[in-house]
Amino acid sequence: MNVLILVLEIIGTVAFAASGAMTGLKKKMDIFGVVILGLTTAVGGGVLRDLILGITPPQTFQDPMYALIAIATAIILFLPPVHRWLTRNLPLYEKVLVVMDALGLGIFTVVGIRVAFHVSHSFSGFLLIFVGVVTGVGGGIIRDVLAGDTPYILVKHIYAVASIIGAVVCVVLWHITSSIYAILAGTIIIVVIRVLSAHFKWNLPRANFDDAESKAKAPAEK
Amino acid sequence: MNVLILVLEIIGTVAFAASGAMTGLKKKMDIFGVVILGLTTAVGGGVLRDLILGITPPQTFQDPMYALIAIATAIILFLPPVHRWLTRNLPLYEKVLVVMDALGLGIFTVVGIRVAFHVSHSFSGFLLIFVGVVTGVGGGIIRDVLAGDTPYILVKHIYAVASIIGAVVCVVLWHITSSIYAILAGTIIIVVIRVLSAHFKWNLPRANFDDAESKAKAPAEK
Amino acid sequence: MNVLILVLEIIGTVAFAASGAMTGLKKKMDIFGVVILGLTTAVGGGVLRDLILGITPPQTFQDPMYALIAIATAIILFLPPVHRWLTRNLPLYEKVLVVMDALGLGIFTVVGIRVAFHVSHSFSGFLLIFVGVVTGVGGGIIRDVLAGDTPYILVKHIYAVASIIGAVVCVVLWHITSSIYAILAGTIIIVVIRVLSAHFKWNLPRANFDDAESKAKAPAEK
Repeated sequence: MNVLILVLEIIGTVAFAASGAMTGLKKKMDIFGVVILGLTTAVGGGVLRDLILGITPPQTFQDPMYALIAIATAIILFLPPVHRWLTRNLPLYEKVLVVMDALGLGIFTVVGIRVAFHVSHSFSGFLLIFVGVVTGVGGGIIRDVLAGDTPYILVKHIYAVASIIGAVVCVVLWHITSSIYAILAGTIIIVVIRVLSAHFKWNLPRANFDDAESKAKAPAEK
Repeated sequence: MNVLILVLEIIGTVAFAASGAMTGLKKKMDIFGVVILGLTTAVGGGVLRDLILGITPPQTFQDPMYALIAIATAIILFLPPVHRWLTRNLPLYEKVLVVMDALGLGIFTVVGIRVAFHVSHSFSGFLLIFVGVVTGVGGGIIRDVLAGDTPYILVKHIYAVASIIGAVVCVVLWHITSSIYAILAGTIIIVVIRVLSAHFKWNLPRANFDDAESKAKAPAEK
Repeated sequence: MNVLILVLEIIGTVAFAASGAMTGLKKKMDIFGVVILGLTTAVGGGVLRDLILGITPPQTFQDPMYALIAIATAIILFLPPVHRWLTRNLPLYEKVLVVMDALGLGIFTVVGIRVAFHVSHSFSGFLLIFVGVVTGVGGGIIRDVLAGDTPYILVKHIYAVASIIGAVVCVVLWHITSSIYAILAGTIIIVVIRVLSAHFKWNLPRANFDDAESKAKAPAEK
């Protein structure tokens, strides 16, 4: 169980660090910008989670492993051969970025739920799900705010929704089966929903502000 | 007293959720972006307040009511009839947005002071006012940073000032009269100052950077 | 020793408040925007540090001195004579801004390490350095995010690096000599590295995303 969590956390850290580094590379930042963006994306959600749960100093500050993994990931992506291979095919670049972000989203959501469970078994399902979602989406929000982009969570279809569905499944399974199934099922559901929604560009209703506006103006102009 | 606070918190939550949702609608976000922006605006100030006061997990994470109210508010605003009615008259839209933001600012400032009082009665007036102002302005700052706008607090005349004046009045009245008067007076003062300053576009001194710059350049070009 | 820390903290507060205020002035904010940006820049790093270390309410909320110094600094910079003098020579303006930011970066990094030492002597060197760097870079990140700029830390060469080098030196000296030498050496190293790198525009490798992209596209277009 602990090994599973460790492996998942490492994958999540690599994935979010890669998504942060790739965002920095797209903005033509130098190596330090790329590393800092990779690092903050990878550890940001966990720091938010620990502050919310009252775990101080946050885990990331106590165990250098995660920061080092994130820094190494960003440096590797910065290496010209790796980078050239990715940019040789821009649609591939975008797809890798989406998958990395989805992996981080899925893993950190369930890891956040697990950490909350460890702090107290009396937390409500609502709190567990909320903490999980904040942990999952936190790193990406910090990445996008620092990079000057509109956060994924506000503009990508089915982003927070994927995290919420996976978190609900995880919390429910945690109570009725073992935590291993809960963690695996939650992660897989989030990654699958997120990747499918990005691939098929599932659409959600959008406000027709302009339409309503122009319709509203039309009669007024008579 | 508790009923008054509850009613105020609900109004504040609805108001800030509406201001966040309306900001998202103006940016043509889809329904989830609108809901997320409404939710973060409504609960953001309170989460900051609780982290500053060491209340973990923050209240919002423990009681789902506020999150549900915020989500419901955002969804209602997203409904085409409501939205169409608002956009039929754009100046009205802007005015509703200003009033909603002012209501949230006023209510959360005094609620922040009350929560700080509950944590410790030995806090200085400075701390109470500071926590109140952070609670009041926090939600709007998060909304504007996520939406990619310059935060109201930096560009709107008399924004933090309204919150500070109301917070001072609230803390002073709390000591010399009852807490009910303090809460009501603080809230009303903030909302009135903020709405009046927005309506009459009260102006504050602004740096003449360009003028100074052009004057500075002129002799240099000789 | 305590006097040295006090003097350094005051200088750091003035320096970061000035950097925030000057950023606000460049964006032609009114006096309240300038003051708020100066204040958040000056106290932001310390608030982050205290939240990470579990010191609640953060020091800034307990002792009004720092907030008052930051507000006074911003108001003085807003005064037309001061401001005119700075803008008479724009390159001077930029240089003063860089030096102010470097002073804040250096001082708050070592002050962050000292506060972490006071919380626990058993913290690892990694934690001390990490907390110091977050304290040092935090104020500037908040300033740039609020002002809508890309954070210095992502785009300025040798920014976080200066803070990290100084933090390492500070922690090492703290263990092998006295804390006074550690604090002075750490601060001076950070300020010198940062100012020199800004002055000589030291360059770091930057990803050739476009080149790689165009090379990648070229064969594809055949």
